Amino acid sequence: MTYKAAVVGAAGFAGIELVRVLLDHPAFDLVAATSDSNAGQAVAQAYPALAGRTEMRFSRTDQLDPHGLDAVFLAVPHTASLSMTPALLDAGASVIDLSADYRLKDAGVYEKWYGVRHTSAHLLGEAAFGLPELFEDDLRRARKRRERREGALVACAGCYPTATSLAAAPAVRRGMVRAESPIIVDAISGVTGAGKSPSAKNLFCFANEDAQAYGVATHRHTPEMEQILGCDGRIVFTPHLAPMNRGLLSTVSMQLAPEWIGAGLDGIRAEYAHAYADCPFVTVLDAGAFPKTSAVAGTNRAMIGLGLNESAGVLIAVSAIDNLGKGAAHQAVQCANAVFGLPQTQGLGATALPI
Amino acid sequence: MTYKAAVVGAAGFAGIELVRVLLDHPAFDLVAATSDSNAGQAVAQAYPALAGRTEMRFSRTDQLDPHGLDAVFLAVPHTASLSMTPALLDAGASVIDLSADYRLKDAGVYEKWYGVRHTSAHLLGEAAFGLPELFEDDLRRARKRRERREGALVACAGCYPTATSLAAAPAVRRGMVRAESPIIVDAISGVTGAGKSPSAKNLFCFANEDAQAYGVATHRHTPEMEQILGCDGRIVFTPHLAPMNRGLLSTVSMQLAPEWIGAGLDGIRAEYAHAYADCPFVTVLDAGAFPKTSAVAGTNRAMIGLGLNESAGVLIAVSAIDNLGKGAAHQAVQCANAVFGLPQTQGLGATALPI
Amino acid sequence: MTYKAAVVGAAGFAGIELVRVLLDHPAFDLVAATSDSNAGQAVAQAYPALAGRTEMRFSRTDQLDPHGLDAVFLAVPHTASLSMTPALLDAGASVIDLSADYRLKDAGVYEKWYGVRHTSAHLLGEAAFGLPELFEDDLRRARKRRERREGALVACAGCYPTATSLAAAPAVRRGMVRAESPIIVDAISGVTGAGKSPSAKNLFCFANEDAQAYGVATHRHTPEMEQILGCDGRIVFTPHLAPMNRGLLSTVSMQLAPEWIGAGLDGIRAEYAHAYADCPFVTVLDAGAFPKTSAVAGTNRAMIGLGLNESAGVLIAVSAIDNLGKGAAHQAVQCANAVFGLPQTQGLGATALPI
Amino acid sequence: MTYKAAVVGAAGFAGIELVRVLLDHPAFDLVAATSDSNAGQAVAQAYPALAGRTEMRFSRTDQLDPHGLDAVFLAVPHTASLSMTPALLDAGASVIDLSADYRLKDAGVYEKWYGVRHTSAHLLGEAAFGLPELFEDDLRRARKRRERREGALVACAGCYPTATSLAAAPAVRRGMVRAESPIIVDAISGVTGAGKSPSAKNLFCFANEDAQAYGVATHRHTPEMEQILGCDGRIVFTPHLAPMNRGLLSTVSMQLAPEWIGAGLDGIRAEYAHAYADCPFVTVLDAGAFPKTSAVAGTNRAMIGLGLNESAGVLIAVSAIDNLGKGAAHQAVQCANAVFGLPQTQGLGATALPI
Repeated sequence: MTYKAAVVGAAGFAGIELVRVLLDHPAFDLVAATSDSNAGQAVAQAYPALAGRTEMRFSRTDQLDPHGLDAVFLAVPHTASLSMTPALLDAGASVIDLSADYRLKDAGVYEKWYGVRHTSAHLLGEAAFGLPELFEDDLRRARKRRERREGALVACAGCYPTATSLAAAPAVRRGMVRAESPIIVDAISGVTGAGKSPSAKNLFCFANEDAQAYGVATHRHTPEMEQILGCDGRIVFTPHLAPMNRGLLSTVSMQLAPEWIGAGLDGIRAEYAHAYADCPFVTVLDAGAFPKTSAVAGTNRAMIGLGLNESAGVLIAVSAIDNLGKGAAHQAVQCANAVFGLPQTQGLGATALPI
Repeated sequence: MTYKAAVVGAAGFAGIELVRVLLDHPAFDLVAATSDSNAGQAVAQAYPALAGRTEMRFSRTDQLDPHGLDAVFLAVPHTASLSMTPALLDAGASVIDLSADYRLKDAGVYEKWYGVRHTSAHLLGEAAFGLPELFEDDLRRARKRRERREGALVACAGCYPTATSLAAAPAVRRGMVRAESPIIVDAISGVTGAGKSPSAKNLFCFANEDAQAYGVATHRHTPEMEQILGCDGRIVFTPHLAPMNRGLLSTVSMQLAPEWIGAGLDGIRAEYAHAYADCPFVTVLDAGAFPKTSAVAGTNRAMIGLGLNESAGVLIAVSAIDNLGKGAAHQAVQCANAVFGLPQTQGLGATALPI
Repeated sequence: MTYKAAVVGAAGFAGIELVRVLLDHPAFDLVAATSDSNAGQAVAQAYPALAGRTEMRFSRTDQLDPHGLDAVFLAVPHTASLSMTPALLDAGASVIDLSADYRLKDAGVYEKWYGVRHTSAHLLGEAAFGLPELFEDDLRRARKRRERREGALVACAGCYPTATSLAAAPAVRRGMVRAESPIIVDAISGVTGAGKSPSAKNLFCFANEDAQAYGVATHRHTPEMEQILGCDGRIVFTPHLAPMNRGLLSTVSMQLAPEWIGAGLDGIRAEYAHAYADCPFVTVLDAGAFPKTSAVAGTNRAMIGLGLNESAGVLIAVSAIDNLGKGAAHQAVQCANAVFGLPQTQGLGATALPI
Repeated sequence: MTYKAAVVGAAGFAGIELVRVLLDHPAFDLVAATSDSNAGQAVAQAYPALAGRTEMRFSRTDQLDPHGLDAVFLAVPHTASLSMTPALLDAGASVIDLSADYRLKDAGVYEKWYGVRHTSAHLLGEAAFGLPELFEDDLRRARKRRERREGALVACAGCYPTATSLAAAPAVRRGMVRAESPIIVDAISGVTGAGKSPSAKNLFCFANEDAQAYGVATHRHTPEMEQILGCDGRIVFTPHLAPMNRGLLSTVSMQLAPEWIGAGLDGIRAEYAHAYADCPFVTVLDAGAFPKTSAVAGTNRAMIGLGLNESAGVLIAVSAIDNLGKGAAHQAVQCANAVFGLPQTQGLGATALPI
C-alpha cells in the first residue's frame, strides 16, 4: 500500500530535498510538487540532479486538491502554513509542517517572536512536535488521529533546535545542568540554511571564505529551544554561517550540578548512550571523539560528542546534523513514517559520502 | 635607516606571510628566510605568489648567523624557540617569537600543558607579551631594552587568545563579568590554522564541506587566555574548523554582573569603544552589527560586535581576525614596530579585498 | 545468492567509496577491506561517515586469502596491480582493477608512459576494458570467462578517459571528426582526483580558491584516450584542478568533417541520443543545456551537453561525471555487475543531492 | 598633483575593487562612487572590509557632475556606457570604460552580438583598447588627447579576452599558429565573474562544489578575442565556472606551423619572454611550470605557462589573472596611469597572499 503525498514549496532547498527522498520512498507516492515561483518549470530543469530521474513539473499551490491526499509536506515560510493547514486537515490530509507556525505551544510567544497574529491557535494543542527522538508520545498520538481518519498535524522542529536539543536534552532531562544557569549554544550552519532568496548571506562571493555570526540574541529558534528543553529565558543562542552547502554543528555548553562533575565524562556519556539506545539515527561517539558535519550530509543522522571542562564545571556537547536532512526534509519523512505506522528508517537509509 | 631581519621557519604559513609583509616593509631588510624542510628551494617556487617578487631561497636554520641581525622572527613550533632564543638574545638580536614558548609566565603551567621541560624559564619574566592593544607597557619595556642594545624578547599571543582577548578584555577589565562565572569561548578558524603538516584536518577533501569541533576542553590556548584575562580555571574553550583558508571568529559569552545588564548594549558598547579608541587596528562595530572574517583577511585588523541577551544576563562579544594576520605574522610585525620605535601601522596598512 | 568481495586499497578515496557502495549492494558480500597504511584501524574511525554503519577494520593486504573470493577490487596505484593480479586470477577470483596496469593493450606504450616493465603482458589480451557503455563486448567475454569458473579480469577506465570518451566517442565512431585533426581535451577535476597522499595539490590551503592546469602534454591518461578513440597522437589533453571534492568535467573540442557542420547541432545531438539510448547512466542533455558536476556527485551517472561553433567548424562536447563514481568506484561496480550477470544498475541507483 | 576621479557602478564587484584601489592610489582622489541600487548607503556597510577605511556613501549616478572630474571609471553593464560616455568626454573628463560598449571596432559586430544599436559609433575609432601590454600605441594616443585637454576614452578589455590574448598573442603575432586553424580557448572563471545580480550561477549553494561550462559557442567575448588576435571566426571559446571568488585561468590550444614545432618548447618560450620583457605585470614561467590563479588574486599580474604536444603539433598556453584585477579594476587603473602619464605600476604594487 502506498500513500499519496504532496510537497508544497517544493522548489526551495528543503522542498527539493523532500522531493528527492519521497521519489525513492517505497510507501509514499509523490503526486504533486508545488512552487508558485517556479510553476510550470520541469523539476529537473531547476535541479539538474533530477534529470533523467523524474519528469514532474512544479505546479501552483492553489491548484493542489487536498482531497485524496494522504500526506502534505509544507516546506514554506512561516505564516504560509497558518493559512493552509486548517483546510488540509479538514480535507482529511495529514500535514507535516516544516515551518515554524505550530511549533510554539504558546500563541503569545509565537506572536512576540514572529510579529504576526496566530490565526489557528486552537490547533497548537494537538500539533505533534516533530522531533521523534525526544517527543515519541506526540507522534504516537498523531498516528492514532490518522488511524481514526482525521488529519494529523506534525510541527517539525527547526534545524538549530533539532541539533541543539539532541545535544542538550539528555543532560537537561537527567538533571545534570545547574538550575538557573544559562545554556550557551553556539552553532554553525551551512549556507542552505540561509535559503534560496538572494541576500548578502547566500551569494557565493559573500559567503565564501567567510565565517560570521548573525541573529545574535535575536534568533527565532531561541524560544523553540527553551520550550523543548524547558528552560525559559536561559538559552543564549548565537548562530554562525560557514562556507559549505549543508551541515549544522551545535556546540552546547552547560554548567553541571556538582554531583555530575564528579561523575566524569564516562559517567555522563553512559547517560547519553542510554538515552539514545533505541534511536537508529543518533550515534553517541566515543569519549574524546567529536562529530564532523560532512559525516552526516545527505542523511537523517545525528552524531554527538561530549567533552568536560572539570575546572569550570562545564559539559560541552557537540552535535552534527545535515540542516536539510535531520534538520528539515529527512526528519519530516521520519515523522511521516511515524504517523503512517511505517518503520522509522524507511526511505531514510542513506550513508553520507565518506569523502 | 633599516633593520636587518630574518624569519626562521619561513616556509610555514605564518612564516611565509611574514616574508611577504617584511619584503614590503620600509624599515626592515629581510636578509634570510630559513626552512630546514625547504632549504635550497626558491621561495617563489614553494609559494608562486612571490614569483617575480623575490629571488630569495630558503636557507638552513643552523646557517643563520645572528650577529648583525636586528630582529629574528621565530615562526616555529613550540620547543624550537626554547632552544634558539637564548643565543639570539646573547648575540644582541631582538626575538619576535610566534611560538608558545614564552607566553605563559608560569613555567609549571607551560610544562603541564605542553608536556616538555622549560629550559629557559629565567627569560619568562622579561618576555614582553605580544598583544599590543592589551599589553602596551610590556612592549614599551622591550623597546627600552633594545635601545640599551640588549636583545628584546616578545612572545606574541596565539591566534585564538588574540581574538578572544580582544573580545573579552574590555568587559573583564571593567568588571562587567560576574565573579567565578565560566566564560564560554567558541571559536572558528580557517584551515591555515591547522598548519602545513599533512593531517586529517588540513587535507582538502577532509576539511572541505565540513565543520567540526576539536581539542574540546584540552586546547593549549586555554591557559593563555586565562592568563591574559586573569580568570584561572574559568575559560571553556571549544575551537572549530571551517572550510576557508584564513579567518578566525571568536564568540565569547560572559555572564554580566547585575549592574551591567542594566547598562544595556549601548552602555557596554561605549566602554568597548573607549577601550579601543587609540587602537588603529581595532574597529568596534555599531550595535547590532557583527564582524565577518573575510573583511579582515590579509590584514592586521580586528573587528568586534556585541550582543546582549537580557533575560539570561549574558553579553556576547564576537571578534574577527585573520589567524595569519592579527593572529600571527602581522601582529608580530606590529610588535616589532613597537620594539624598534616605528609607527605601529608601518608596513601594515592593507585593506582586505572587499569581495 | 551473494558473491564474496574484497577491496584492496580500501583506505584510499576510490577504495572507501567502493566499500560504501558494496556495503549497500544486495549481491556482493564485502568480506575484506585491506589497507597496509591503515591496517588494524576501524574503517569508521578513518571515515566517520561509516560510524554506526560497519564495524569492519582495515586488514593487511598480504593477509588476504584469495581462495573463496569471487571478486577482488584493486584500488591501488599502478604496478601494485601487476604484482597481485596473476595470483588472484589463478585462485579463481575475478579481478576488477581500478589501476592503470591492464588498460593499455600495447605493453610498450605502458612501459613508455609509466616507466616500468610490464610483468604480465600475457594478460593484456584477455583483459576487458571497463567502460561498459563503449566496450560492452569486452564485458560479455569477461562474464563468459567467469561462468567457466576462470577468473575474469577487468581493467576499469581512468576517470579522465571515461568522461572524455563518453563525450567524444559518438562523434569519433560515427565519423564526424576530421581525419588527422587534433582533439583538444580540457578537463577539470575535483581534488579527490589528486588522491590522499599529501602534496601541494591536495592540501586544503593550496587547493582552495585556486584553479590550475597540471600535467600539460604529459598526463598518462593521454594514451588511454587515444586507444579508446583510435586516434593515435591526436589527443591534446590538459587537466585542471578546481576546489571541490568530487566532480570531473571534460570539454572536448573536435573539428568536424564538412558534411557534419551542415547537419547542425540537432542532427549531431540525435546521433548522441541514439548512441546512448540503452545506457541508463548516460543522459544527453537538450541542445543548449550543459552539465554541472554537482548533478552527478556520488553517482555512476554521466551527463553530456553539446555545442557547435559553425564558423570554426568545431563541435564542443562537455561531459560531467563524479571522478570517484563513474570515474572509479561506481564504474567498477557496474563492471562487476556485468561480469557476474547482475542487472547493470544494481546497487548503483543513487541520485545526487539536488543542492 | 592629484586627479579627481569617480567610479560609476561602484557597488558592483569590479566597481568596489576600483574603489579600494583608488582609495590607496597616490595620484587619484576619489570624489564619488555612484550606485543607483545602493545610493545613500555607506560603502563600508555594503562592503565591511572598508569599515574604518572610508566614510564615503554611494551616490546616485545622475547626480554626478562631470565638470571638474579628470577621470571617470565606468563599471557598468553594456549599453549603460553608450548613454553616458559622450557627455563625459564633452565635459573634458577622460573615460575609462570597463563595459563592452567601445571594445569592438565594428559597430555591426557589436550590434550582432549584443543585440542593441550602437548610438555613438563615431567614438569607436578613437577609443583606445585597454590592454596595455598589447596596445601600447592606443594608450599613447589617449594620453596625447588628454594632454590636449580633450577627454580620452579607453575601452578596457574584458576579463576572458585579457587572459586569453596575453596567452595567445606572442604565438599569433609571431606567426607560430597555422593559418586557418581553429584556436581552442577553454577558460575557468571564479564566481565574481558572474556578477552580483542573483542567478543560478552565483548563489552559493548552486556554485559551490560544482564545475560547469556555460555560454558554449555563444559567449560575447568571442568576437573581442578574434579582433585582438586578428583571427576572425577561428576562436572556439568555452568558459567554465569554478567555485572560487576570484581568478581566471585561460588554456589556449593552438596548432603550430611546422617550423615552430621544430623550435621546441624552449624556442617558443624564448619568444614569449622576449614579448613581455618590458611588462612588469606579466611573468612567463619556466618551461614545465604552470600558473595558479591564487598566485595573482588581488593583483594586476598575469602569469603564463607553456606546454608543447609534439605529436599533435599543438602549443598549449595557459595564463592566470584575477578577473577583478588584471581582468577589470586593476587593468583599468593601469590604463588610467597610462592616460595620465603616471608610472604604470603606481597604486598597483600588490602581491597576492602566498596562502
